[in-house]
Amino acid sequence: MKYCFGVDVGGTTVKMGLFSIDGNVLDKWEIPTHTENEGEAILPDIAAAIMKKTEERKILSEDIEGVGIGIPAPVDGEGVVQSTANLGWGYKAVKAELQALLGGMRVEAGNDANVAAMGEMWLGAGMGEKNIVMVTLGTGVGGGIVIDGRMLVGATGAGGEIGHMCVRRDEEETCGCGLHGCLEQYASATGIARLARKRLAANEDKSILRGTGMSAKDVFDAVKAGDSVAIQIAEEFGVYLGEAMANLAVIVNPAVIVIGGGVSKAGEVLLPYVEKPFRGKAFFANKDTRFVLAKLGNDAGICGAARLILS
Amino acid sequence: MKYCFGVDVGGTTVKMGLFSIDGNVLDKWEIPTHTENEGEAILPDIAAAIMKKTEERKILSEDIEGVGIGIPAPVDGEGVVQSTANLGWGYKAVKAELQALLGGMRVEAGNDANVAAMGEMWLGAGMGEKNIVMVTLGTGVGGGIVIDGRMLVGATGAGGEIGHMCVRRDEEETCGCGLHGCLEQYASATGIARLARKRLAANEDKSILRGTGMSAKDVFDAVKAGDSVAIQIAEEFGVYLGEAMANLAVIVNPAVIVIGGGVSKAGEVLLPYVEKPFRGKAFFANKDTRFVLAKLGNDAGICGAARLILS
Repeated sequence: MKYCFGVDVGGTTVKMGLFSIDGNVLDKWEIPTHTENEGEAILPDIAAAIMKKTEERKILSEDIEGVGIGIPAPVDGEGVVQSTANLGWGYKAVKAELQALLGGMRVEAGNDANVAAMGEMWLGAGMGEKNIVMVTLGTGVGGGIVIDGRMLVGATGAGGEIGHMCVRRDEEETCGCGLHGCLEQYASATGIARLARKRLAANEDKSILRGTGMSAKDVFDAVKAGDSVAIQIAEEFGVYLGEAMANLAVIVNPAVIVIGGGVSKAGEVLLPYVEKPFRGKAFFANKDTRFVLAKLGNDAGICGAARLILS
Repeated sequence: MKYCFGVDVGGTTVKMGLFSIDGNVLDKWEIPTHTENEGEAILPDIAAAIMKKTEERKILSEDIEGVGIGIPAPVDGEGVVQSTANLGWGYKAVKAELQALLGGMRVEAGNDANVAAMGEMWLGAGMGEKNIVMVTLGTGVGGGIVIDGRMLVGATGAGGEIGHMCVRRDEEETCGCGLHGCLEQYASATGIARLARKRLAANEDKSILRGTGMSAKDVFDAVKAGDSVAIQIAEEFGVYLGEAMANLAVIVNPAVIVIGGGVSKAGEVLLPYVEKPFRGKAFFANKDTRFVLAKLGNDAGICGAARLILS
């Protein structure tokens, strides 16, 4: 049997997985992310954990195809990051350094959102497809794009930053990135909560959302309960996201758009709100693009990272 | 010396080129496109022209690396088209059929706009880059996207249809594709002429454009002459195109955006009108994306088609 490792680096923990190259998860574990001293221990810790697992399982080094690693930052085509928000790293040649720590073993590195999309393509909601978009609706809106089975990395590793498509030119509030009207301002968990607060402040309509924290979860719970104000909020969210996906599809022509992240835990109820405006604005060649919920949850990162080794 | 052929199929003529694989154009010629009888002669004519050229130049078949071909229709990853607007073809397995006609020689096929982008990357305005976007401003707005040196083809061959990004949700006139507010309605030659007619009809301001045909060329000629109304039209065009390119760059993260097609013959005067709104709306990772005019003109197609063989 041939093996590969998938590593998903987060600000608090590093998720790790051992896979057979035919896609079976053989082991999963986590180690802490030591971000102190500019994160100098992170890659050595990862290398040590891989070596230890290899010994434990008595895996021969010639049976290991390599190690894939996902990083929460833009990663260029050479596996280099320029800076990170929460790992302590400035410039780091991730691929080359980890490869050296592992005695020359093959290493591939990618941005975590792109890597998650690879995971959903390999073992999740996009299985069997080679052209997929993954939108992650969390605190922000992340994106990963896979074209013909390969991550869309871009010139500086910033491909697929779907959350910063401009969907509203006249927005007055500023996005975290400094621009105005980014998709993230309407379709992230934070964005949905903002839409809810605004709509409830604008009138006195009865709603079970009043008195709640008006989180994205509260909104979709209220949608499920048939609350008409919540339904209007979901429709507003869906128009922003669905029309943005129509514009994205014109460029990428994906077979599947996978929706993941915390907001997607609302479940299937969410999809029609996005699909309807998408169909209304989709270019004819994209009328058949499917919308599906992500399947792998927190495992998308380790799966996709392992998949990098098979490209 | 090793050779490859580049073929650019149009509705009236087929442009053909013989290249050395290091990028020298050794010969260029054209043959008519015979679209009658569902275009049944097109591929045989191309194969015959290649065989004839090979004999004329006494090229050994083992020195030919292959033939690339660009088609004015979506072409999927297998080199298949489903229908064409102006060749007479319905479903056609272009790659397989031409390969059979050429005795098994390697053939690669692509959409003409994507292929032109490959050409500009190889021998034109994007030389040295691997991530480029090409926007062709002609009767419509065409687009070709190259990611990491490969065409963005998409699930059904409809990747890179930049002209049908929605840039104005409240547009009342209908685009040729049936949607409303497509980039093509404002940034094509036809679109610029429409902006001009509307602006001149809306007021009585003096302009040297009055009495002209108000073509895109008239508009940019008037811009060069300092005509203030023409400058307003160019600014309006530039906002639509520049902001659309900012949204596109968020997804694709290109090093260079190449502007080609008839409208680009206006020359360098055009670029600042697009760049300024781009910079205003660009995500920080794309602030350095360069705008350049296409260099290859009508040869982009044959160059890019030949380049397909070297991927």
